[in-house]
Amino acid sequence: MAEPDIFYILGNRVRRDLLSHLTCTECYFSFLSSKVSVSSTAVAKHLKIMEREGILKSYEREGPFIGPARKYYDINIAKTYVVTITPNIFWYRGLDLKEGPGGPIESQEEPKTLGEMILAFRNLSEELERVLKTLQRIEGKRDRLMAMIKDTYLKEIGDMTQLAILHYILLNGLATVEELSDRLNLKEREVLAKASELDRFVPLRIKDGVITIDDERLKAKLGEKNAGED
Amino acid sequence: MAEPDIFYILGNRVRRDLLSHLTCTECYFSFLSSKVSVSSTAVAKHLKIMEREGILKSYEREGPFIGPARKYYDINIAKTYVVTITPNIFWYRGLDLKEGPGGPIESQEEPKTLGEMILAFRNLSEELERVLKTLQRIEGKRDRLMAMIKDTYLKEIGDMTQLAILHYILLNGLATVEELSDRLNLKEREVLAKASELDRFVPLRIKDGVITIDDERLKAKLGEKNAGED
Repeated sequence: MAEPDIFYILGNRVRRDLLSHLTCTECYFSFLSSKVSVSSTAVAKHLKIMEREGILKSYEREGPFIGPARKYYDINIAKTYVVTITPNIFWYRGLDLKEGPGGPIESQEEPKTLGEMILAFRNLSEELERVLKTLQRIEGKRDRLMAMIKDTYLKEIGDMTQLAILHYILLNGLATVEELSDRLNLKEREVLAKASELDRFVPLRIKDGVITIDDERLKAKLGEKNAGED
Repeated sequence: MAEPDIFYILGNRVRRDLLSHLTCTECYFSFLSSKVSVSSTAVAKHLKIMEREGILKSYEREGPFIGPARKYYDINIAKTYVVTITPNIFWYRGLDLKEGPGGPIESQEEPKTLGEMILAFRNLSEELERVLKTLQRIEGKRDRLMAMIKDTYLKEIGDMTQLAILHYILLNGLATVEELSDRLNLKEREVLAKASELDRFVPLRIKDGVITIDDERLKAKLGEKNAGED
């Protein structure tokens, strides 16, 4: 999990309004201050917080009229954040848009005129809506599956610590023994003992202090079982 | 834009830790308190804030031993939030996982055993990774396109207010005259006058106080232009 301070920044309406104005154009202090409904002292405080957190950068430049240089602000990050929170799942991730996977979304050439750019943006926004629907469907289904997994584990095996390890590995893809030791308030050898117990029900790969689900053994186990039922 | 208070809740590490523990199992106060490294007074305060915001609900139930009833907490929402913030784009949306689009992700039957559930969860998590990569690519490209649109508009037309209207409509899909009036600090008839100016460069549909891009006229305009160039 990475860069949670962004949530602190976004947890304030004035800061969100300031960010929203800043995405449209480069802004100097008094322009920003005139756009939101709080005192200029409050605006200065919010801008300072966002600069400190690395969300904004500022620079001085002379205005179009005679007078002191103006302080301008720019947004300094390019990220998409995704958070899921349900009774069974909680995770978040920041996706870096500057270092994202390359390649065109559509096999279209680079737009050259304003009209072409706007049409390309509209098409991508439609594609975004489809992706959000897929994301919603996947997360809804993962939530229901995790509820079933928790229920079944508690009914069939009933060990809360094993379940906590399984839950953590499923949500994060893997877990280090160290992470689990911190989270569960257990010694590392106690974590390893609990993981071996869990392994009897859910095949695990434990190597170099990292625990993951052993998909191959899991699939083999499911295959055997189905073969046995035939 | 909806439900921004979630960012306030997520903007605190202790609250995030508490939520993380709550997704694994139902928790009572002293259990939660033992899992995080702050005073029980602080834990009580954070739980109260999250209950007030509707993120948690609490209920009393007798514990396994003789003594007073324990207060248990459950997470009360099921949502995925997406936020993009770049120098050119800022938006966020909450996706309701209970009311999401139905239908199976894969043409697989409902898993029945613990192993099948875990395998299904693993497969969905892989699919999630692919969706996140697509989201990252789309938002990276929308960011670059919006930068080009802003540059081109300022160079070719140069009117900041028209650009602000265009920027808002592109990000939100549509804008009401009322929203734009609030945002731009203009009277509604001034917004309409600016929108008609913008319409000379970017075809708009203005109807019942709602402004959108007129995709058909935009495509027709681009088609004409290309035909003219041949």
